[in-house]
Amino acid sequence: MTHATGRHFLQIPGPTNVPDQVLRAMAAPVIDHRGPEFARMALELLQDVRAVFGTAEPVVIFPSSGTGAWEAALVNTLSPGDRVLAFETGHFATLWRDIATGLGLEVDFVPGDWRHGADPDTVRERLAADGARAIKAVCVVHNETSTGVTSRIAEIRRAMDEAGHPALLLVDTISSLGSIDYRHDEWGVDVTVAGSQKGLMLPPGLGFNAVSAKALRAAETAALPRSYFDWRPVLAANKAGFFPYTPATNLLYGLREALRMLREEGLPKVYARHARHAAATRAAVRGWGLEVLCADEREHSGSLTAVLVPEGHDADKVRALILDRFDMSLGTGLGRLAGRVFRIGHLGHFNDLTLAGTLAGVQMGLALAGVRVDPNGINAALDHLQSC
Amino acid sequence: MTHATGRHFLQIPGPTNVPDQVLRAMAAPVIDHRGPEFARMALELLQDVRAVFGTAEPVVIFPSSGTGAWEAALVNTLSPGDRVLAFETGHFATLWRDIATGLGLEVDFVPGDWRHGADPDTVRERLAADGARAIKAVCVVHNETSTGVTSRIAEIRRAMDEAGHPALLLVDTISSLGSIDYRHDEWGVDVTVAGSQKGLMLPPGLGFNAVSAKALRAAETAALPRSYFDWRPVLAANKAGFFPYTPATNLLYGLREALRMLREEGLPKVYARHARHAAATRAAVRGWGLEVLCADEREHSGSLTAVLVPEGHDADKVRALILDRFDMSLGTGLGRLAGRVFRIGHLGHFNDLTLAGTLAGVQMGLALAGVRVDPNGINAALDHLQSC
Amino acid sequence: MTHATGRHFLQIPGPTNVPDQVLRAMAAPVIDHRGPEFARMALELLQDVRAVFGTAEPVVIFPSSGTGAWEAALVNTLSPGDRVLAFETGHFATLWRDIATGLGLEVDFVPGDWRHGADPDTVRERLAADGARAIKAVCVVHNETSTGVTSRIAEIRRAMDEAGHPALLLVDTISSLGSIDYRHDEWGVDVTVAGSQKGLMLPPGLGFNAVSAKALRAAETAALPRSYFDWRPVLAANKAGFFPYTPATNLLYGLREALRMLREEGLPKVYARHARHAAATRAAVRGWGLEVLCADEREHSGSLTAVLVPEGHDADKVRALILDRFDMSLGTGLGRLAGRVFRIGHLGHFNDLTLAGTLAGVQMGLALAGVRVDPNGINAALDHLQSC
Amino acid sequence: MTHATGRHFLQIPGPTNVPDQVLRAMAAPVIDHRGPEFARMALELLQDVRAVFGTAEPVVIFPSSGTGAWEAALVNTLSPGDRVLAFETGHFATLWRDIATGLGLEVDFVPGDWRHGADPDTVRERLAADGARAIKAVCVVHNETSTGVTSRIAEIRRAMDEAGHPALLLVDTISSLGSIDYRHDEWGVDVTVAGSQKGLMLPPGLGFNAVSAKALRAAETAALPRSYFDWRPVLAANKAGFFPYTPATNLLYGLREALRMLREEGLPKVYARHARHAAATRAAVRGWGLEVLCADEREHSGSLTAVLVPEGHDADKVRALILDRFDMSLGTGLGRLAGRVFRIGHLGHFNDLTLAGTLAGVQMGLALAGVRVDPNGINAALDHLQSC
Repeated sequence: MTHATGRHFLQIPGPTNVPDQVLRAMAAPVIDHRGPEFARMALELLQDVRAVFGTAEPVVIFPSSGTGAWEAALVNTLSPGDRVLAFETGHFATLWRDIATGLGLEVDFVPGDWRHGADPDTVRERLAADGARAIKAVCVVHNETSTGVTSRIAEIRRAMDEAGHPALLLVDTISSLGSIDYRHDEWGVDVTVAGSQKGLMLPPGLGFNAVSAKALRAAETAALPRSYFDWRPVLAANKAGFFPYTPATNLLYGLREALRMLREEGLPKVYARHARHAAATRAAVRGWGLEVLCADEREHSGSLTAVLVPEGHDADKVRALILDRFDMSLGTGLGRLAGRVFRIGHLGHFNDLTLAGTLAGVQMGLALAGVRVDPNGINAALDHLQSC
Repeated sequence: MTHATGRHFLQIPGPTNVPDQVLRAMAAPVIDHRGPEFARMALELLQDVRAVFGTAEPVVIFPSSGTGAWEAALVNTLSPGDRVLAFETGHFATLWRDIATGLGLEVDFVPGDWRHGADPDTVRERLAADGARAIKAVCVVHNETSTGVTSRIAEIRRAMDEAGHPALLLVDTISSLGSIDYRHDEWGVDVTVAGSQKGLMLPPGLGFNAVSAKALRAAETAALPRSYFDWRPVLAANKAGFFPYTPATNLLYGLREALRMLREEGLPKVYARHARHAAATRAAVRGWGLEVLCADEREHSGSLTAVLVPEGHDADKVRALILDRFDMSLGTGLGRLAGRVFRIGHLGHFNDLTLAGTLAGVQMGLALAGVRVDPNGINAALDHLQSC
Repeated sequence: MTHATGRHFLQIPGPTNVPDQVLRAMAAPVIDHRGPEFARMALELLQDVRAVFGTAEPVVIFPSSGTGAWEAALVNTLSPGDRVLAFETGHFATLWRDIATGLGLEVDFVPGDWRHGADPDTVRERLAADGARAIKAVCVVHNETSTGVTSRIAEIRRAMDEAGHPALLLVDTISSLGSIDYRHDEWGVDVTVAGSQKGLMLPPGLGFNAVSAKALRAAETAALPRSYFDWRPVLAANKAGFFPYTPATNLLYGLREALRMLREEGLPKVYARHARHAAATRAAVRGWGLEVLCADEREHSGSLTAVLVPEGHDADKVRALILDRFDMSLGTGLGRLAGRVFRIGHLGHFNDLTLAGTLAGVQMGLALAGVRVDPNGINAALDHLQSC
Repeated sequence: MTHATGRHFLQIPGPTNVPDQVLRAMAAPVIDHRGPEFARMALELLQDVRAVFGTAEPVVIFPSSGTGAWEAALVNTLSPGDRVLAFETGHFATLWRDIATGLGLEVDFVPGDWRHGADPDTVRERLAADGARAIKAVCVVHNETSTGVTSRIAEIRRAMDEAGHPALLLVDTISSLGSIDYRHDEWGVDVTVAGSQKGLMLPPGLGFNAVSAKALRAAETAALPRSYFDWRPVLAANKAGFFPYTPATNLLYGLREALRMLREEGLPKVYARHARHAAATRAAVRGWGLEVLCADEREHSGSLTAVLVPEGHDADKVRALILDRFDMSLGTGLGRLAGRVFRIGHLGHFNDLTLAGTLAGVQMGLALAGVRVDPNGINAALDHLQSC
């Protein structure tokens, strides 16, 4: 028995629910990407997009997925055989490692339990031990989408500074940008990697690199082969409001509208909203008597919450039941977490009542799937939403 | 402090949330309303729309609000000074009465307490007492939008038959059509009045009259002046797929899509869904310790639930708080119910999790407004949704 | 053989091509028509719409076709048996006459040849001869959509003033508003009738009445029965930004965008653009060796051009061929002009190259239909467009 | 003096005018790219897209520009130092050469005059002379967007076969796919490169590679580094209807609609339509007394026409005037053709009257820019459109 009427609840941790006004903005006619109207839009957009990264430096936009933006961060700054320090914070950190390895980089991959972020102390130790300065870059996933754990980038920066090590800092913000407080300049990040389909509230199709002056200097000598993802022709063409190849015009229309919405709400409020919804979600999970995957109170994600299902239950069966019965999509357990967790996305264009509906659906779905849950879970979340 | 991001919860009892696909269908370019493509569409639509009324007879579509369709039902069938039997079931029944009176009809308006539907026994008695057959029409609001009470049309029809009285039966289904089981032909209704903006899931702008053969015969002699709302030129032009004046083309595009969606779900499922959501809503209301306005178990509306707020509280203050704090619109108390009730719309393009979000918002809003409610109300609703 | 790809050319004299941005504006979600956001929009809109009428007085908006707005103009100002002076300028003037007659008014209908506008001298004579002041209103169609003839309202006003006659002046601007210079206040019009689907660049579904203070006074004593089209409850509710019945919300969104576009272009430029396109069209028609229906150089319409086809040809066959072969809709000959003319709409959201494509299609269609035309017609139009 | 109302004429040779229905299809909500609904859509789409390539073999879809798809064709099939035969047919062939060179390939670049396609005889000779089979691939741009010249792929294939050479055949169809007859399988092409924004009538943002079995075998040993553009993980995930990274969901919605439209019209009719519009355009150009850039009658492009402006005139000034005065975008002269040609795009969602408007705009713009043109040019085009 299905009740698939009304609006689908897309509560995976991205792509997120695209606001109607963004979809409408994207439905405008394509314009000449070499004409004056396009140039005006692009110049404005390339300036305005910087705020959400917390940077005054250039942001390169690619027609690509976030994966492409990962690759761009690496090929523009590194050379074959370069050593990179990375952290096994979860599935996506592992995928990025695989890309780096595939491109011919040597990755020191610090093992992890998928319940913690990258450890600043380890960063300090590893870099301090690298007397030869063989490590050229530190790669960190800010918000690990597979686990709902947010690494502490400011502390990692501090650790790098304390080690006095010149490695570049490359940070993946694919599921944090526009949702969780982030400061490219203040934290001394060299390349920030992002995508369009999460906190930016757009459909997938755009990849981003915010690029520090130091990263730009690295690009001059980096020897990994690159063509499509080469920053230099993009930055050169961007000066006049153009792109070296046909840009994804309609996604840029959407980006303009999404940035306007974020500005209107104000980034501090956007971050506070996400944190508040995340706290309410954890209140529900704990109210149900279940466990949140993230094991460090300092590292709870504002974007998503991964929930451990008790032994003897298959998280994917719960998800399938919820999809079938309540028309809600939740995130699956990825990699080693398959079947053990489901993930609730609470990011992007989102509000209290949609969160309440989401949590109600999870609660009912768990119960119907035979997972013993305390039905006061939902009220723990509502109490949180009411009280702050 | 406002959290106005994400999608607005439009939970008034109409206009309802228009499905995205209907809005997109309406965004198609206008076509020549005298051309062959239009005629094909109109002929198909004028046939397909009948199913939702439960009729094989013609349905007249006006560019108008539902109010216009009320007027159309009267001016096409009645003459100045004609006597009409109507029932004070609530605010909208009273408005319709006012229109009838304004048009020069004599209305026998049976008083009511705004918590019950039109009483079939009273119909039988009044008609039986009308030996002179002075009463030309019985006017009933099927679902009184101001109270959430659904009158029992089949029983009223039976009462009319038992009285052996030839009066026409005119029924307002503005907030029931496409939401609550309705059968124009089977119940022997002569004119069914409807609008686009409720169960038909369209924006406002179309009024409907389903018209029986008996009503058409009445139209031949009815003497109330009529022009815009005259059925005859419309029915004549409709034969070839045209209209006597420019139709609201884009709303007709939307109607085509909405009818397709209703067909796809199946009307019995549509009605069952509404009834189930209404029952879950009442479970919440009672769980909170509050009272549903509708006083007869046989007459609970599937479209909306009017909730009495306890003495000492202003329902409109609760509504304002909920709008401000949770970005949800609820229906106000109308007429004599002002300040005493708020109305929860649960009709149209709607599903379990949107209902859960809606009820969560009401529960939090009541609590924040200082109305003492049992927080298990939400769980009473979830229990209902889970169990059937 | 059909080539129906690309965008349809909708070159009937209305409904016109709705701009993409208006369609997108209309695709926004419906909001609570009793809530504060709606009220803000409505108050702004009810103020802004006045400019296009050239009035500082209120404009009443109905969910209706233009036909409904005709009826509204009559029923709000007149009483049964009142005498009205009207002019047979074409098909629509005749329809309006029929409505007036149907409502119980006495219409003095000055005969016409469907090639001229209402004659100011006749107005003066008829009114001067009406010593008893029996004529309560003069009804004029500003731009007769069936003929492409524009009556000279300013001169008619002067004629009325010269006759010293107190009759109301009711003017239909359905196909001129927003296309042809019009001044409700300056010309002393009492009721201006309009619709959404022509110069206002919206889909059909809204009717308008701009109302003078004198008309409002007339409404106090006018005795024609009225309910849906009664100005008074609308004007009363409008004061707070509301409507007495559910308004056509999404068309109001579109109206807001359309008014913004007209303001951005500037009304004088809008009128000049239409006049220029009309002149280019006439240049083409004459270049082809054909005759424009409008017989008075002072009365050529800026919105549309009706073209006489030579004896022995059926204008509707030409239209059908053009629709089939070039996917362009042209206006048919109405009433007594059936088969003798086709009408080219050049109003609304329109530009030089769309006009050029339109005229090219007409030229090719005429040739293919066997009508002998000089192929330099198109160049006569291009010459005009190039030179001014 | 600007007349920028109505619809912009986007007559560059891509991006093309996206049909309204495609834009509306793209405005549907994003869905879970790991869910069953997505998989159903993707499996269908990955099958259906093959027809437009004329292949039964797999088509790989990237979130990228066409440039990315160029890179993908190279990195999946070739190894550093591999020799490639390519032809200087124009600006885009030169750019593709640059990418190949940048990736470490050795390109034999046969010089050209930018007025002819790749010469099949040269292919035969070069390959015959390559006794060592050092040439691993032949790269040809099917339709050179900078010149409006279409290379004869079938003849090139024959030449390769006659030379008995095993090189791969890589073909860029970015501005021909869905516009000009193309047969991946029949012509034995190994990789066909395409983008979304031309004949596929979509916004930019998708790159395509149709891949032969031979190309897939080459991919097993190709040693160029590749990650984002690696076919293998995409093809593996595609088997179940998924992608290895988040796909550009909404562009895929648009692709589904665009393919439906192409199927509905029928590819042979689509190609015939483009050829007919191209012929009409050449008739206009010659009628004006100007010269078409393409110098070989067998190689005229169906997608676009590059027009030489007479000595003493700057093509870009003509373009700027036309944009300013008639709101039409034309393609600029690229590379060595800068200032000497402008390009008229007549591809994608397009029809006779839009072409007529386009040519009228060019004719008027040339005249206003002081280029002496015979105004009968437009009529030469109309004659062609009328007669076939």
